[in-house]
Amino acid sequence: MRSQAASLNTKRSITPKAASQKEALNLICSQKGILRVHTAYGIEAYEKRGRMWPEPTRVAMAEADAVLFGAIGGTSYPLPPELHKTDSLLAVRRSLGVFVNLRPIRTLPALYEASSLKPRVLKGVDLIIVRELLGGIYFGEPRGVEMLPGGERRGVNTHVYTSSQIQRIARFAFDIARTRKGRVCSVAKENVMEAGQLWREEVQAIHDAQYPDVELTHMLVDNCAMQLVRAPAQFDVLLTDNLFGDILSDSAAMVTGSLGMLPSASLGITRDDGRRGALYEPVHGSAPDIAGKGLANPIGSILSVAMMLRFSLSMPKEADLVERAVSEALESGARTIDIAIGSKHISTEEMGDAVASKL
Amino acid sequence: MRSQAASLNTKRSITPKAASQKEALNLICSQKGILRVHTAYGIEAYEKRGRMWPEPTRVAMAEADAVLFGAIGGTSYPLPPELHKTDSLLAVRRSLGVFVNLRPIRTLPALYEASSLKPRVLKGVDLIIVRELLGGIYFGEPRGVEMLPGGERRGVNTHVYTSSQIQRIARFAFDIARTRKGRVCSVAKENVMEAGQLWREEVQAIHDAQYPDVELTHMLVDNCAMQLVRAPAQFDVLLTDNLFGDILSDSAAMVTGSLGMLPSASLGITRDDGRRGALYEPVHGSAPDIAGKGLANPIGSILSVAMMLRFSLSMPKEADLVERAVSEALESGARTIDIAIGSKHISTEEMGDAVASKL
Ligand SMILES: CC(C)[C@H](C(=O)O)[C@@H](O)C(=O)O
Ligand SMILES: CC(C)[C@H](C(=O)O)[C@@H](O)C(=O)O
Repeated sequence: MRSQAASLNTKRSITPKAASQKEALNLICSQKGILRVHTAYGIEAYEKRGRMWPEPTRVAMAEADAVLFGAIGGTSYPLPPELHKTDSLLAVRRSLGVFVNLRPIRTLPALYEASSLKPRVLKGVDLIIVRELLGGIYFGEPRGVEMLPGGERRGVNTHVYTSSQIQRIARFAFDIARTRKGRVCSVAKENVMEAGQLWREEVQAIHDAQYPDVELTHMLVDNCAMQLVRAPAQFDVLLTDNLFGDILSDSAAMVTGSLGMLPSASLGITRDDGRRGALYEPVHGSAPDIAGKGLANPIGSILSVAMMLRFSLSMPKEADLVERAVSEALESGARTIDIAIGSKHISTEEMGDAVASKL
Repeated sequence: MRSQAASLNTKRSITPKAASQKEALNLICSQKGILRVHTAYGIEAYEKRGRMWPEPTRVAMAEADAVLFGAIGGTSYPLPPELHKTDSLLAVRRSLGVFVNLRPIRTLPALYEASSLKPRVLKGVDLIIVRELLGGIYFGEPRGVEMLPGGERRGVNTHVYTSSQIQRIARFAFDIARTRKGRVCSVAKENVMEAGQLWREEVQAIHDAQYPDVELTHMLVDNCAMQLVRAPAQFDVLLTDNLFGDILSDSAAMVTGSLGMLPSASLGITRDDGRRGALYEPVHGSAPDIAGKGLANPIGSILSVAMMLRFSLSMPKEADLVERAVSEALESGARTIDIAIGSKHISTEEMGDAVASKL
């Protein structure tokens, strides 16, 4: 046994996506002697065991070298509020210590037709969003809704970052830039937020002290949201905070034709035993409206497997193979409904097969 | 004298934009007996008087029925930090009590070529963003950067909304929806932010109690950022908070071909004397990189004048005329550089003339 990969099936609803992702994963794991543990998280687990994130799943995840996550979010399933604190995706991210979320976005000429953007805008897009994942308004205190005298209510959330949180994510972004085109654009709202000024200063200081060879620019978040639609090819590495990273990666999604195309990797710091938290998940949510109909695009999940091979399992060649298989399947015309414009579309499972057949 | 319009020239840098905006404005004001007061705000005022927002400008603005603002932001001009509190655009918005910011976004077939989006996506887009403008993270306390023991710094900003702040902006959005297609989509991040849950609950409650005839849907901000690129024609009225409104309106800008096309109106509550704060400004910033070169697109400013005629000066017919003149100028081929794709472009002033000639 070389390594353990715990594949978490988030919800009953994503079974079809999980199916084809599993296929590619099985193929690779069985050839490489990797132990695959399948364990339950989400509504399914909640209904069976009263917890979204039950103890056996916690144990399996803590033991694994990498966690492959189905998809979550987007439902209004009535869960007890206390579970949001202890069992939510945010709790999972926190427990694994994954402070960086990587969202690579690349365009394929085969998908120019599917995108809502013009081919002239899509040409040459190859960017990666480096999103801070354990700070900002997602975790800041105080938070909550309080009653004011007179019956008014007041809702509060706190955006907070310390220098060291900013420094470690900045270093990550600069390191990645060195393996790419060597350019980092740091995004904040420093003309309104003092915490954004701190963000900018700390990123600039790390750059000047340790990464003078990398090109660093700064951009306001509103402008960046526009530039991702106007001219996304200008970016190499986009470095930003938790909330802005969430919004900007969805803005950028249409570049690829569909949110369903996008993979992500969330990584922690390397511990003394050489291991680090690693969570792989597609950027899309669980899309309960299309669940179980064979309509979901499995490519976000399959490319997340490729990222897992590269970042957690030291199998960069296999990662390349998976990515190439995806490109070839798309070039040969395989399309799920979200990326099919006026052409015939295939099911989630058929897309999984199309990719597997190119492996 | 029917009314006063104080036209604020934000920066030396925007003089060319102001020039053609002034032309249209002069034409209308002189015919209608409206007093036009031109007064200084911004860097220019700061250099002459040591304040961005000097006293005479404050007085002129307080007396005016409407304020037409040049453009601001986007520079790194070194201003003393205390002026940001007292003299910034946020201080201006607060002092005028303008709690709602309206950003209409419409596509014109003549500009399909200029947009980065495909014509199939642009067809039929006619939406308006109703952005809350005096709350959220822009004004929340506590805020700032503090020193922690050990040399670490900690940056904080607070997102906060009360029920009544949410209710008044929700009512505004529902009222507008009744004059349009009758659909409001409310945008928050309620799966992460408790203040977003409050936002959603209050909007829903106002809807159910007072506007059951309007169709109300809710959307997460990340999804909305994507939908604005994927299929913007789905929206009628988008209701959202200060920060999300800032980001989403820039995301939506490329629909029109250029940020330079977009006008905005910021309005306050109607006071006992029947007057209300009203601030009209293009959505774009002062773009110091192109300032003074005749490259700026004056249409955002000109359409802001149209909004002023409609919302502050009770001149809806004249507002229609200005809007029609803009459409006609564009249809006859007039293009500033930001919306010229492979065709000849004209200067800021020539665009102003092209619009004025259609009036
Ligand atoms: C489901 C939700 C909590 C999550 C987030 O906001 O981080 C999702 O939108 C994402 O981008 O991973
Ligand atoms: C200049 C800046 C403070 C402003 C904002 O963030 O509100 C601008 O981006 C806008 O959209 O009007």
